[in-house]
Amino acid sequence: MSLTLTPLPGLPLIRPGDPLADILVTGLTAARIELQDGDILVLAQKIVSKAEGRLVNLATIEPSARARELAQSSGKDPRLTELILRESNAVLRVRPGSLIVEHHLGFVCASAGIDHSNVRGEGGNPDDWVLLLPEDPDRSAAQVRAALEQASGKRLGVMVIDSHGRAWRLGTVGTAIGLSGLPGLVDERGWQDLFGYHLKITVVGVADELAAAASLVMGQAAEATPAVHVRGFPYPLRDGSLKEILRPKEEDMFR
Amino acid sequence: MSLTLTPLPGLPLIRPGDPLADILVTGLTAARIELQDGDILVLAQKIVSKAEGRLVNLATIEPSARARELAQSSGKDPRLTELILRESNAVLRVRPGSLIVEHHLGFVCASAGIDHSNVRGEGGNPDDWVLLLPEDPDRSAAQVRAALEQASGKRLGVMVIDSHGRAWRLGTVGTAIGLSGLPGLVDERGWQDLFGYHLKITVVGVADELAAAASLVMGQAAEATPAVHVRGFPYPLRDGSLKEILRPKEEDMFR
Repeated sequence: MSLTLTPLPGLPLIRPGDPLADILVTGLTAARIELQDGDILVLAQKIVSKAEGRLVNLATIEPSARARELAQSSGKDPRLTELILRESNAVLRVRPGSLIVEHHLGFVCASAGIDHSNVRGEGGNPDDWVLLLPEDPDRSAAQVRAALEQASGKRLGVMVIDSHGRAWRLGTVGTAIGLSGLPGLVDERGWQDLFGYHLKITVVGVADELAAAASLVMGQAAEATPAVHVRGFPYPLRDGSLKEILRPKEEDMFR
Repeated sequence: MSLTLTPLPGLPLIRPGDPLADILVTGLTAARIELQDGDILVLAQKIVSKAEGRLVNLATIEPSARARELAQSSGKDPRLTELILRESNAVLRVRPGSLIVEHHLGFVCASAGIDHSNVRGEGGNPDDWVLLLPEDPDRSAAQVRAALEQASGKRLGVMVIDSHGRAWRLGTVGTAIGLSGLPGLVDERGWQDLFGYHLKITVVGVADELAAAASLVMGQAAEATPAVHVRGFPYPLRDGSLKEILRPKEEDMFR
């Protein structure tokens, strides 16, 4: 069976308070997709954050002494740096152009996932608006999922993704930051191999694999196609969460 | 346009010397897929390595003193540890159960990508056979691509992938280790955002995003469906290579 990922065309620019699930239903109709059991919707963080009103105007932010200091070594705006610190548990690395942190949500990412492009709030200098990640992306995914399941009568999965950089390799890849109704990991440990005698030792990051696939489809027009419909996910759906994907800090060899 | 990934059904177990491209053509026919310009074939490392005869019997390996020492701290077979060292530029981390290295090919991975499951050579103890990565996976991809392009008359991409663990997050994800005819990265730096005034600063790891997608499709039956046909890759094809994806060591904050 094939895996098919289809970007929903013609979604409007999302504003605070917009009903995301309703907008997705309209987009699915425009794409002539009728939801089936097992389908998954993947949403770019940006539209979820915007709908949830996570816009902040930097003019309202007073940088702390620590933020000013980190702004110096990273070359970032001190007010943005202050916001990054407020969104984070810890600063992992600082270099000119880079501020790598552990976000409050538990994952490691650059600049606490705060986004500056395609963001414009009401009033003030339009260049001063930035967008924080959703407060609880698992909850965001669950809310959209509940509304879509109610509208369709089908068993679905919903995932919120962002683009993350990586250790060792160049280029960002789509990465799961919130999920509902699909597994974060599939544990193959103990399965036998084809010859029936080697036990496998693999845990597969299926949510992140799907996040990367969906991000690819959002592609060059990512801002214009921030929602992707997925059919043919090859693993059984179950409840999953961001937390299961995060490597416990004490087991992490690369902090 | 949708991205569609289709595993090729019914491929035989690959043996040293097998003509991979011919086998893929048969698999494509079985899947009723006629190749089109822009299609990509993604191959699990395992079938490429097997076809290239990269099987080694551990009984033939004499571990060095350093291998014995690292085998102690990692809990791995000293002969396997010796092979890992021979395949690597440097050892990055050693923990019970883990030996993280920089492979000769330049990427960071566990155990130099040496595989123990679904591997069985001719003679000796069947449990002693392991499989090294292809010597030059870009070249492997180029060879398969040339044969498929000649057979089809179409402009194609071919990629070889493996499952890699990651810093910070649990679960392996499909990762590009060799490519031909498709970009490793797409550089969006300098593109304008939707409002026309923020310049983007993103480089996207499109080959790794596609590798993750294909790995998902190989899925639970990865050993049985080690080749995936891709249609609808949303970026223009061009020549690419593993090297462009690897973060220069001196810029890597997480070694």
